[in-house]
Amino acid sequence: MPGSSIGTKFRVTTWGESHGPAIGAVIQGCPPNLKLTEKDIQREINRRKPAKSSKISTTRREEDKVKILSGVFENRTTGTPISLIIENKDVRSKDYAKIKNVYRPGHADYTYDLKYGIRDYRGGGRASGRETLSRVMAGAIAKKILKEKAKTEIFGHTIQVGNIKADKFNKSYIEKNELRCADKEKTKKMLNLIEKIRKEGDSIGAIIEIIVKRPPKGLGDPVFNKLDAQLAASMMSIGAVKGVEIGTGFKSAEMKGSENNDQITIKKGKITPLSNNCGGILGGISTGQDIVIRLAIKPVPSISKKLQTVTNKGKNTTVQTIGRHDTCLAPRIIPVAESMAAIVLADKLL
Amino acid sequence: MPGSSIGTKFRVTTWGESHGPAIGAVIQGCPPNLKLTEKDIQREINRRKPAKSSKISTTRREEDKVKILSGVFENRTTGTPISLIIENKDVRSKDYAKIKNVYRPGHADYTYDLKYGIRDYRGGGRASGRETLSRVMAGAIAKKILKEKAKTEIFGHTIQVGNIKADKFNKSYIEKNELRCADKEKTKKMLNLIEKIRKEGDSIGAIIEIIVKRPPKGLGDPVFNKLDAQLAASMMSIGAVKGVEIGTGFKSAEMKGSENNDQITIKKGKITPLSNNCGGILGGISTGQDIVIRLAIKPVPSISKKLQTVTNKGKNTTVQTIGRHDTCLAPRIIPVAESMAAIVLADKLL
Amino acid sequence: MPGSSIGTKFRVTTWGESHGPAIGAVIQGCPPNLKLTEKDIQREINRRKPAKSSKISTTRREEDKVKILSGVFENRTTGTPISLIIENKDVRSKDYAKIKNVYRPGHADYTYDLKYGIRDYRGGGRASGRETLSRVMAGAIAKKILKEKAKTEIFGHTIQVGNIKADKFNKSYIEKNELRCADKEKTKKMLNLIEKIRKEGDSIGAIIEIIVKRPPKGLGDPVFNKLDAQLAASMMSIGAVKGVEIGTGFKSAEMKGSENNDQITIKKGKITPLSNNCGGILGGISTGQDIVIRLAIKPVPSISKKLQTVTNKGKNTTVQTIGRHDTCLAPRIIPVAESMAAIVLADKLL
Amino acid sequence: MPGSSIGTKFRVTTWGESHGPAIGAVIQGCPPNLKLTEKDIQREINRRKPAKSSKISTTRREEDKVKILSGVFENRTTGTPISLIIENKDVRSKDYAKIKNVYRPGHADYTYDLKYGIRDYRGGGRASGRETLSRVMAGAIAKKILKEKAKTEIFGHTIQVGNIKADKFNKSYIEKNELRCADKEKTKKMLNLIEKIRKEGDSIGAIIEIIVKRPPKGLGDPVFNKLDAQLAASMMSIGAVKGVEIGTGFKSAEMKGSENNDQITIKKGKITPLSNNCGGILGGISTGQDIVIRLAIKPVPSISKKLQTVTNKGKNTTVQTIGRHDTCLAPRIIPVAESMAAIVLADKLL
Repeated sequence: MPGSSIGTKFRVTTWGESHGPAIGAVIQGCPPNLKLTEKDIQREINRRKPAKSSKISTTRREEDKVKILSGVFENRTTGTPISLIIENKDVRSKDYAKIKNVYRPGHADYTYDLKYGIRDYRGGGRASGRETLSRVMAGAIAKKILKEKAKTEIFGHTIQVGNIKADKFNKSYIEKNELRCADKEKTKKMLNLIEKIRKEGDSIGAIIEIIVKRPPKGLGDPVFNKLDAQLAASMMSIGAVKGVEIGTGFKSAEMKGSENNDQITIKKGKITPLSNNCGGILGGISTGQDIVIRLAIKPVPSISKKLQTVTNKGKNTTVQTIGRHDTCLAPRIIPVAESMAAIVLADKLL
Repeated sequence: MPGSSIGTKFRVTTWGESHGPAIGAVIQGCPPNLKLTEKDIQREINRRKPAKSSKISTTRREEDKVKILSGVFENRTTGTPISLIIENKDVRSKDYAKIKNVYRPGHADYTYDLKYGIRDYRGGGRASGRETLSRVMAGAIAKKILKEKAKTEIFGHTIQVGNIKADKFNKSYIEKNELRCADKEKTKKMLNLIEKIRKEGDSIGAIIEIIVKRPPKGLGDPVFNKLDAQLAASMMSIGAVKGVEIGTGFKSAEMKGSENNDQITIKKGKITPLSNNCGGILGGISTGQDIVIRLAIKPVPSISKKLQTVTNKGKNTTVQTIGRHDTCLAPRIIPVAESMAAIVLADKLL
Repeated sequence: MPGSSIGTKFRVTTWGESHGPAIGAVIQGCPPNLKLTEKDIQREINRRKPAKSSKISTTRREEDKVKILSGVFENRTTGTPISLIIENKDVRSKDYAKIKNVYRPGHADYTYDLKYGIRDYRGGGRASGRETLSRVMAGAIAKKILKEKAKTEIFGHTIQVGNIKADKFNKSYIEKNELRCADKEKTKKMLNLIEKIRKEGDSIGAIIEIIVKRPPKGLGDPVFNKLDAQLAASMMSIGAVKGVEIGTGFKSAEMKGSENNDQITIKKGKITPLSNNCGGILGGISTGQDIVIRLAIKPVPSISKKLQTVTNKGKNTTVQTIGRHDTCLAPRIIPVAESMAAIVLADKLL
Repeated sequence: MPGSSIGTKFRVTTWGESHGPAIGAVIQGCPPNLKLTEKDIQREINRRKPAKSSKISTTRREEDKVKILSGVFENRTTGTPISLIIENKDVRSKDYAKIKNVYRPGHADYTYDLKYGIRDYRGGGRASGRETLSRVMAGAIAKKILKEKAKTEIFGHTIQVGNIKADKFNKSYIEKNELRCADKEKTKKMLNLIEKIRKEGDSIGAIIEIIVKRPPKGLGDPVFNKLDAQLAASMMSIGAVKGVEIGTGFKSAEMKGSENNDQITIKKGKITPLSNNCGGILGGISTGQDIVIRLAIKPVPSISKKLQTVTNKGKNTTVQTIGRHDTCLAPRIIPVAESMAAIVLADKLL
């Protein structure tokens, strides 16, 4: 089955290569009569851009201006497919000529060649992180649907970079720092670590947490399309994600049932769990509590250290990635992961 | 979208409640002319049964005898849907009368009521662990396909119970102990811990690892249907699983790109990665290396300790689960998780 | 994609061979809390049976007793998959031994061998008309949903057998005659023709019409999943159907726009079309008028006349079909076609 | 399920409104390493354009220049989604202001409002015939795949306009006349009829026939995804199509089994049917014979005769369609129907 579509009722189809003429998404199943302008989408696109003065991000500077080509009439959705497009402008394809025949370690170069027998090597082609632009375009619409229909809010924050873990949570600080970390003190330490790693010509991994406030209750389809299963797939489909956990996640291995079970009581006439170890999902169905997801982000594979590798002709060689790259992906992946959560939830809600 | 189907080309549809007349699966897309008898499936079904003399498992004793109702003619598959059925026999539904109106913490009782407004409360109904029988039936066929077409082998082992971690790996020991742990010494410690927990009327979590040896190369469909994404979904769809990681997984948060990237060399004329931090998947496509997946298994929610909860009428109450239950699910989930891996891989292979 | 499933929200998966142990269907997406007993389904199953004293139908006499295996609890649906099964009892497989290696003209023997390289030749195996039992089981549930949610009624009648065309319409007569024809006088003529054809050892084609009264308005998903497109597919998927038309259908080739366009007026404050040339569907979406579908039914390919054919080893031979077969399929296909319409409409409605 | 996608392995997603900025298609699952340039697609696009000097077609004159935005690298497909776009240029939206609130008989205006509560009324919006451009773009690629992999050729011709039926078949004449009719003499009569109808301010229906030469054998997935079922759906999804038949189609109602069954013999060592009444499909699977499909095309609903209708406020009114429209759609629908056949067959083949 072709892999560039996700969702059944709210279906997103994406297309585009890093150095092709444009990147886009087609959204089917968006409810009609929703107010929608390019601004709604541009706002989220801008959150995914590298921080302007950042030392942690790529220096590729794309304008990333989104255009709506269909499905919206007089600023309202019509229920027909919404086609969104962003042109690629700051393309320096010649930078990539030298890796044309080389498999960069940690990248999909080798596996794309294995599978397709051909690849657009310029900037990673379809396997580029730039592909996530389409996710954010679609996610912006999904977020809007969730907000209007259920007042649902989705946000993410960086909780670990290398071995530095955030332990305070100041929500309002998240969007004020380029790491999207909710712990001011640890943010500094994380940034110092990243700066050190960057100077080494290396990169570093991280953990991020995505929180869905006020999710609609009762979403999720047992047995195979459980909400947690589909969220896990959506998150793991993001290039750099190597682990997903919900609620207590891997910690639950060390817990007893009596600790991990969320006991329940009645508060003000309402069924109220006393804890949220389940992360807002029981039996694959949302309880209405916050949905809490944590993601392991691998270190960016593009580094300027010299690594041992091979050519597509089977010769040993080495490679250094000199292009324009991030040192730690966490802050830029947050809007992408939020978008994936929004897409899955909107699909289930509709 | 209805949730009891998985797969596109190799599509599995499951049905059945814990205390209904039977449990079953329909498999579409199985290649024709594959040798298949009930024995092939029964073997895997038997691996999922509780250990006979076990102190760690339920005392429900089901014969679990599988029958093939269609799709096989003279011991060969015909390419038409294969219908498999197992009758439920050791059903003691009256045990469940008292929880008819009570939401058991950690179970799906509340969310099923929320979603459907009705539930078959006997033994958890559709949300029972017994549902995984259907996965194992289908998985047995998927394993057979993978073995015949690609010599692929899939196995799992318990690597952690509570805070006890296995650190030796003796593959041949796995199927010789009721925990399916590859470390003989730690197995004893784990069993002692489980016995202690069982006497407390409690349960305990675990971590298991699934390893796919000799997976076909080039499987996986970027962007959203990456192999790791679909494996993650399939695993997270198992009731007790709360976390999934591939390769270095959450550890990659603390790693540098230079450490985590799998460098590549030529050995005997073949492209050979020097490590397997990626867990056999790059860019969502299998490299041909072992696929390595680890799963967090939450402690069984059914425990005999008294827990605070509510009725479906909104009254506070308490509940103790007295039925026949496991103390640690890890060994019985292993064949289920192997089956899910097999189903996903067979679907991608065909 | 495996072909034994239909529908997205109301999804039907069927299985079973003519001479295997049983035939069945799994229905996903049936709304919870619908009253449902085996009787509801048995009633429709009985309508598909050959008329007891009939000269036009097969003499295979199956009890066709349906059992519900899951998804229903205390006579109400629970929202989980409904598994239905009917055992095959009047099986005389040895009748078919002689056609084991022979391709019967007009049957799928040759194409099944071509596609699968193996076939269960007994009674046509999966390609047998007996497969339609599963459609009727599922259709019974779909009809119940439509009736309860929208008071929709679906019925069919025979409008042509050979060159004899019905031209009167007495609805109450339809279920009173074994041809399900609404024209009493022409029924006799049709029966006489069929009797004559039967004595010749031959069979005869027919046209049936399916009418959906009070269909829900607004069903259908442009562009490719238009209601008429999905109805056409569902009808053409019935073995003997070789043509489908909606509303004026093929007659519209000879019409002018000014004749064929359904003009509209306001009656009692309601938008009211002055005709129904569109057959209840405009732009792929139901208008709320009757949906009118006509189907061309080919003559039964199993006849006792000797026909020229070949063996699967490539030798010329002849074949006569001596088994127990119908002379004109029209009346038995009517409940099947009604079921297909119901399945498509229920899927769209939910 | 959103309706603007078709196919599983070769999946086409279309978007765009008649008077929006552009129309497009995204094609997933196209095999990698296929030579593909914009010219390959433009050629088919041009066949769909109205004949330049024609009296039978619309006078809207679109350049219809296709651009490839992704999935092709150095003139070869890469296996990633192919995004195609055509800008709308000759847009005269103000022509449509007066029908903003009026439901044109025979059009989808009323049903779109019913379903979505909003519609882009300019030129029919999404329900415009212009939508079929996307089908032709995708069909061009599907045709190329079929030609390269199986030497399959697909063509169509007009066999009836009003009551004038073609009875000669001169294949080379088809693309030489603006009606795409294979009978030179009847072409003149048809054109005269159309001219007469056009002067009356009216339109006329037609029947077209699509023939697939050298289709791959063994395509089609019983039970519900039979090749004829999916072809029927794909054809019926074209706006003006009201009937579909395969092989003998509706004529089979008057035939006996002994006439309609295609007897088989061995010629030059090959299994060879003596006739093709089945239209190349038996049991839902292609036999390898020509696939023959006939389609009823309703008269264009847009006519300049005054028709009775209502406004969206429920007032009686009349409407005349003055825009730029075709008198008989047959010749322009032929490339669209060929495209649909190609899309279905390519999906099945891959």
